[in-house]
Amino acid sequence: MSRFWSDIVHRLVPYVPGEQPALAHPVKLNTNENPYPPSPRVLDAIRAELGEHSELLRRYPDPVAKNLRTAVAAHHGLRADQVFVGNGSDEVLAHAFLALLKHDKPILFPDITYSFYPTYARLYEVEYRTVPLDEQFQIRVDDYLQPNGGVIFPNPNAPTGHALPLAEIERVVAGNPDSVVIVDEAYVDFGAESAIALIDRYPNLLVVHTTSKSRSLAGMRVGFAFGHADLIDALNRVKDSFNSYPLDRLAQAAGVAAYEDVAYFRSTCERVIASRTRLNAALEALGFEVVPSAANFVFAKHPKHDAAGIAAKLREKEIFVRHFKLPRIDQHLRISIGTDAECDTLVEALKAIVA
Amino acid sequence: MSRFWSDIVHRLVPYVPGEQPALAHPVKLNTNENPYPPSPRVLDAIRAELGEHSELLRRYPDPVAKNLRTAVAAHHGLRADQVFVGNGSDEVLAHAFLALLKHDKPILFPDITYSFYPTYARLYEVEYRTVPLDEQFQIRVDDYLQPNGGVIFPNPNAPTGHALPLAEIERVVAGNPDSVVIVDEAYVDFGAESAIALIDRYPNLLVVHTTSKSRSLAGMRVGFAFGHADLIDALNRVKDSFNSYPLDRLAQAAGVAAYEDVAYFRSTCERVIASRTRLNAALEALGFEVVPSAANFVFAKHPKHDAAGIAAKLREKEIFVRHFKLPRIDQHLRISIGTDAECDTLVEALKAIVA
Repeated sequence: MSRFWSDIVHRLVPYVPGEQPALAHPVKLNTNENPYPPSPRVLDAIRAELGEHSELLRRYPDPVAKNLRTAVAAHHGLRADQVFVGNGSDEVLAHAFLALLKHDKPILFPDITYSFYPTYARLYEVEYRTVPLDEQFQIRVDDYLQPNGGVIFPNPNAPTGHALPLAEIERVVAGNPDSVVIVDEAYVDFGAESAIALIDRYPNLLVVHTTSKSRSLAGMRVGFAFGHADLIDALNRVKDSFNSYPLDRLAQAAGVAAYEDVAYFRSTCERVIASRTRLNAALEALGFEVVPSAANFVFAKHPKHDAAGIAAKLREKEIFVRHFKLPRIDQHLRISIGTDAECDTLVEALKAIVA
Repeated sequence: MSRFWSDIVHRLVPYVPGEQPALAHPVKLNTNENPYPPSPRVLDAIRAELGEHSELLRRYPDPVAKNLRTAVAAHHGLRADQVFVGNGSDEVLAHAFLALLKHDKPILFPDITYSFYPTYARLYEVEYRTVPLDEQFQIRVDDYLQPNGGVIFPNPNAPTGHALPLAEIERVVAGNPDSVVIVDEAYVDFGAESAIALIDRYPNLLVVHTTSKSRSLAGMRVGFAFGHADLIDALNRVKDSFNSYPLDRLAQAAGVAAYEDVAYFRSTCERVIASRTRLNAALEALGFEVVPSAANFVFAKHPKHDAAGIAAKLREKEIFVRHFKLPRIDQHLRISIGTDAECDTLVEALKAIVA
């Protein structure tokens, strides 16, 4: 703390990301990374951008990431002016809070959700009200049909993994014609329906994507927002008041290649989904209650064992899962889907703990 | 414009970066990029991080960039907790405006300076007052010894290239014990004295650096702030409320390598300085008045030819320089130092225009 800090710095409650252990071979199931590397085309694209002497690195990258926006727009059947690119979807969300959610009325998001949302709200002094999930950790659409300054929720939700069907998403969007509804689809490719299909009909809908999960590029920081050109324009105005060049040359090249290799993308998503089914069954066999997941993680509790205690015992074996010390979910663990071998290692360790 | 925009979006005046022409071989002297590629060690480091299958890219990068902060701290004789890393120095500056310059009193910066400063101020609703440079485009230190909420200026200043000696910088810092003084040293390595030497004595001093100029990494987006650990802590609190992972894996690896190769860094800086001397003389021979520069650009006007007109004629020959349509400097051109061959091409073209 210091007298040089602005008032706002004193009030911030920074987000705490999952641990990045400095171990040679951890079983790392705590930050929802993809167990498979990115498409081989990503490596080719980065090497091509580097060239023989990394000559291009002395030059600024394209400030508007035209090639990347064009590739991703084509993939989703959108126009490039309906696409915003940021330095990971966290940056995209931050800009969206300032550009589109800062109004007179409080915004709404679930009580159990991505824990960065209240942090953004404090950063930009956006008032918010949390809306409780029901007893099965599901979003009740009717709760979001009340006056608000905006709505944001992930679909599938995090850390629960629960997904709303598209018709229910549409009810939220259609029921809030005067405020922006942000659907944060970081995990959508693992089994939920994307709201991108609704963009041409609803000027108040913003859909946020990331390459960190289904495209295995957490290490490269590439995220997107999709929506009406007016919403994208607002994000660009904030971006151009903050940092003209948010994505470096290699990140832009990597992003394009990741979207071009659709076959690889589909096959890795399918493998993760198959491993999730398998892990689900193994956890239930050990007595865990598992929330039905459409994401690349499962959210599970054991009726007889304390969640923090299980996480600590796993950690001793260099197996990392995520535990949130938060109301309603402090007896749950969020477990990322690893390879089948990693899941097996986890299940063996859990057997020893909960048996 | 849209009813979904927050009030602040309506008020923003986004920064406009220099043009990135989509031409095969432009003579690009408009954005102060380095004419030489980064150290060969940068390429090696990126290749090592990529590995055989870019396997690591699926994993999040180090959110606190420990290796990079350690390398840069060692280079400057600082501790790692005196170093903040951002996604280019533009992001660092943005965070600094919110964290350290947003107070009750207006901040001060020169009337002629980096044109992103007023943009940041509007983004975060930071009040500011501009202080005129003198007739020789020099900062008058005494003007900054008045009540303020903070002070920021580049040294060397941009787009003038003029540098203040360290003793003068110290007068500004010592004379403002109750507010933060930010010295933006993007161009310091081309001939000015760094204020890093003052950090251990002044808890109110923040020095900002970039790898985009002297380390030839504009394409990778790596910037720094150096200062008392309390100031760095404020920046980290904002960063962790905005984006946990601002630098991707390849940018972090590139940054470390660029700081390790001190010999390469020194030799490219010397080459740029030698080319500047040469270009200066050639411009003066053509009748230009050139501001004495300690940066990798020169700021020049011709008494008989309109600056915008010269820039337009150069552009026809695919030679790009920067013209700012701003009060007091609309008859000047900012010309980045290219290779000697690029400078020669420019001079030949100018001969035909001003002869």
